[in-house]
This record gives sequence, structure tokens and C-alpha cells, in this order.
Amino acid sequence: MIGIKSIASYVPAQGVDNYAQGAKFGKDQEFIFGKIGSTFLPRKAGEQETSDLCVEAVNKLFALYPMLDRASIDALIVVTQNGDAEGLPHTAAIVQHKLGLPTHVAAFDISLGCSGYVYGLYAMKGFMEAAGLKNGLLITADPYSKIVDPEDRNTTMLFGDAATVTWMSEDASWRLGKSSFGTDGSGAEFLKVEDGLFFMNGRQVFNFALLKVPAHLHELLEASRLAADDIDLFCIHQGSAAIVDAVARRFEYDPEKFVKDMLQTGNTVSSSIPLLLEKHVLTSQYKRVALSGFGVGLSWGAAIIERAE
Amino acid sequence: MIGIKSIASYVPAQGVDNYAQGAKFGKDQEFIFGKIGSTFLPRKAGEQETSDLCVEAVNKLFALYPMLDRASIDALIVVTQNGDAEGLPHTAAIVQHKLGLPTHVAAFDISLGCSGYVYGLYAMKGFMEAAGLKNGLLITADPYSKIVDPEDRNTTMLFGDAATVTWMSEDASWRLGKSSFGTDGSGAEFLKVEDGLFFMNGRQVFNFALLKVPAHLHELLEASRLAADDIDLFCIHQGSAAIVDAVARRFEYDPEKFVKDMLQTGNTVSSSIPLLLEKHVLTSQYKRVALSGFGVGLSWGAAIIERAE
Repeated sequence: MIGIKSIASYVPAQGVDNYAQGAKFGKDQEFIFGKIGSTFLPRKAGEQETSDLCVEAVNKLFALYPMLDRASIDALIVVTQNGDAEGLPHTAAIVQHKLGLPTHVAAFDISLGCSGYVYGLYAMKGFMEAAGLKNGLLITADPYSKIVDPEDRNTTMLFGDAATVTWMSEDASWRLGKSSFGTDGSGAEFLKVEDGLFFMNGRQVFNFALLKVPAHLHELLEASRLAADDIDLFCIHQGSAAIVDAVARRFEYDPEKFVKDMLQTGNTVSSSIPLLLEKHVLTSQYKRVALSGFGVGLSWGAAIIERAE
Repeated sequence: MIGIKSIASYVPAQGVDNYAQGAKFGKDQEFIFGKIGSTFLPRKAGEQETSDLCVEAVNKLFALYPMLDRASIDALIVVTQNGDAEGLPHTAAIVQHKLGLPTHVAAFDISLGCSGYVYGLYAMKGFMEAAGLKNGLLITADPYSKIVDPEDRNTTMLFGDAATVTWMSEDASWRLGKSSFGTDGSGAEFLKVEDGLFFMNGRQVFNFALLKVPAHLHELLEASRLAADDIDLFCIHQGSAAIVDAVARRFEYDPEKFVKDMLQTGNTVSSSIPLLLEKHVLTSQYKRVALSGFGVGLSWGAAIIERAE
């Protein structure tokens, strides 16, 4: 059974001082720290393409696991809505070539935003099992710096660039448990790109998260016959400090169990959950963790992952 | 086990007379009929979006199966590289809303071109099995009329607009057998969009198809312990009449077993194989059919499907 073997990531070292950016828009440090949650927003270099961020993350994985032979990789998914090209070709093909992976790799992109990692885990696991593949790289890389208007106060203080890779295979350290997904295209207008620029209706997205995410997590727990006490940690999409706080409060359980860690990364879209897993879960003693991604679409996905015995 | 239950499609009635278009470029009827293979190229109306083509195809499916309740649909994938939006949101969310599907639908887009249907079958089957879903709609819709330059003689005589939907569920009429996939991003430049216009290096793509596809099909048969005689029909991507003929010849088996049917559709990208299945396979007595898609990426995928007993 295919599960999560390991995770590596790439977060650009250069970026934006968010206190300074906040000051420009008349926002004080309390707002930036307490509501936005990020004092620094990593930004890719101008010449870096989305595929380059993917390559950086995967090369970190290969450095961590020298025994992982490039020739053994047979599946590659890039979760992105800001790939290298205008529509085609898909970024995963470019990543295959830049990494020097074998041509027997099955590769495609999944178009999803902040819910993308949770969907991607089950799409990769399922695709690999259906096609009989052994070693998959599930990559997230959605550099919003390509589309965010630095003059748009609703978005420019929120997003950071990053990429992650999740190595999925047999003999995994974490197996995937129950999942639950949803889509409401009536809110498609709330997060969109038009004429090359990103637009977000922050109030609508906040309300959506608050109404949907806590209830959806409770439903998933019930379907899994688990109580909140059975979950060691909740890793939800790091949209902003205010969103994470509000979801945790509305969930009505120990808010300390909801990780909040976006201080140096910002909202990294589909990379936010794997960044949390890499830093707070993989090296932990936790046994069972809940994931929840939500955003563009509108789209949401939640899952329980469990440490393999 | 999730398999193919049925297929429906939408091909716009309006379009381009390809003999007239050929004449404009000094190409005679023999070239249009014999090499291109399409005398008519369907074109969506200007105001039709990609999601509208998807909706038309799915509504045909619902008309065919009145007992298929919209509320029972829980998975939706759109295979496209020419969706409604610039990058985000994904087209599948828009389709969910336009169709009035329930919000418990798991929905995402897969970015792939002419290999997309074969990948999509295994991605959908695998995702549904991994997530415990029951009724999936795998949609293909990649209207190249959005990106093809009508003055580009290398591409404007080739492509047609269409959409298909494959209903995937338990108790399916066709089950998915062995599959094989590949990617070679060193050829990413051979099919791409730049400044809103599609570019194709036809010679390179033709050579790729000729070198890769017949050998890949033979490999798949060998891995499946099957001989060419065991396959009732080969449904390969309908890139052009010349490509289908050349692949069939190079495969060195009865060329009559390679369907060639693009006369009234043109190259419909990821819709070409499901259009063949709908028309030539679902209502047939065939027991075992081979599929092969290849194109943008470069990317290829082949599979054996078998009638359920």
C-alpha cells in the first residue's frame, strides 16, 4: 500500500520584509504578526521558473536519500495553477527533463490551489496503485509572486513562494486513512486570475473557511469513528493567522493542537500542509494527524494520516 | 473495482470546411483526406467556454441514463490544458456548479494533452479507489480553437473542438488492465503555447510518434503476456491520418485493426480516444482493446481494457 515515505522542501532565502510592506499600507506590526501571521514572505528570483522550484525541492530529497536512485522514480505529479507555460506543456514534463529522470516516468500536473496537497496525496496513491508504480514524487509549487499585484493590499501581504516534494512508496512511514473532499464552484469568482493578476475576495474566503472547515473536520472524524482526542495534531492550510485561529476556535477543541507556523513562509498555497508535515510531524512521536486544505474553487479536502506500525 | 461504465460526447455542429481551408494553403483534397484525415473541423461558438463543452457532454450522459442521479456523482476530473480561466480556478469547479452537482464532489483538473485520456482513466480509477468514491465523471475538453492561429498552416488544418465524459464506477462494462506511461520533457518545446498562440514542430512530433508508439504498444503487450492477435481493436490518438497510418505500419500487424476515424472531428486532443471508444467499442462485441495516447510533454500512455464478464 502506497503511503508517505518522506518530505523535502525549498523555500527561497530572499523575500519581502512584511513589516515594511505592512507599513506601506498603514498596517502595524500587531496586524502583520497577529492577523497575517507572516513577518517574512519568501520570493523566487525573477528568472526562476515554477519547475526550478520543483527541482530545488526534489534535489533536497535526493540529497537526504542517496540510496534513492533517480532511475527508480516512475511517477511525478506537480500540483500547481501557476506552471511554467501558458496552459501547455505541463510543468511535470519540464521537471522530468530538468531532473534527468528516466523517460518511463508517468507525469502530469494537477490544477488545484490550497486544497491541492490533500487531493494530490490520494490522486498519487491511487494512480500508483492502479498503474502498478513504485516510487512517486508528489510536488507542490504554486508561486503566487507570478500573479500577485504588489499594490493589492488584499493579497500582497499574504502569499509566499515555496515548493515541496512528498516521496510516496510502499514501506511508507505514514499511511493514508479516511479522506473527504468537496467543491463549490458557485464561489469560483472569489479567487481567480484575470488579465494576469490575482484577485481574492478575502471576506468571502474567510467566511467559507469558517463555515466549511471545522464542520468538515468533524464529519471526517465521525466517518473515521474517531474523537478529536484521537488526533495528535491538526495540520490545516496556513491561509493566515486569523484563519487558522478562527477555524481552531470554531472547531471547539484544544486550539494548541492546531499548528500555526507561517511566520517565515506566508501562505504557500498547496505547499503549506507538506511544510507543516516536514517540520512538525515526520520527526515527531505523533501517531495520528488530521490534514485540511481549502481555497481556490472553492475546493476543500481533509484526511487522516497514521504512522505505520 | 472501478471501470468504464459508459461514455458520452459533445461535438459542435458548426465548424470549418477543411477542403476550403486547405485550398487557401494550396493543399488539394487528396492531402486533406489522405494525410490530414479530416474534411470538417468542429469549432465551439465564440461565447462557449471550455466548461460549457463539458456540460454539454455530461448532459448527454444524464439524458442516456435517467437513473443516474446527479447527487450520486462524487468525483469529477477535467483533462484540459485550455480551461476557462488563466491558471485558476480549475475548470472542474466551474463544471460542478454549472451542472448543479452536489458540493460533496471531489473535483480537479489534470493538465495533459493527447495522452491525457489514458492517464485520466488510471488517475480517476485510482483516486476513487483510494478515496472510497462511487461515481466519477472523467471529462476531456481541450478546445484548441482557443489557441490555434488560423493563419498557421502547420496546425489550423488539424484540430477540432470536442468534449467527452466517461462515467466510471463499480459494475462497469469495461475494466482497466495493464498500463504503461512515459514522459520526455526534452521535447517540451515541440508543442507549446507562447503569447497565447499554439506552436507545433510537426516533424519532431511525427518522428516521436513513429519511434515511440509502436514500440511502446509492443512492450505493453509483452508485459501483459498478450499477442497482437489477442487485441480486437487498437484505438490510438487520432493525431492525423498520416500518423495513424504510419504507426499502424510500423507496428507490423493488421493495419485494419487500427481504427482511423477523424473525418468529421479532426484531432480532438484528449477527446480522440474516448470518441473512438464511444462509437466503435462500447456497442461492439469486442473483448479486449488497446489504447495509446501521445503528444504534448512529450507524454505517452497506453493501456489494455477488457470487457467485464
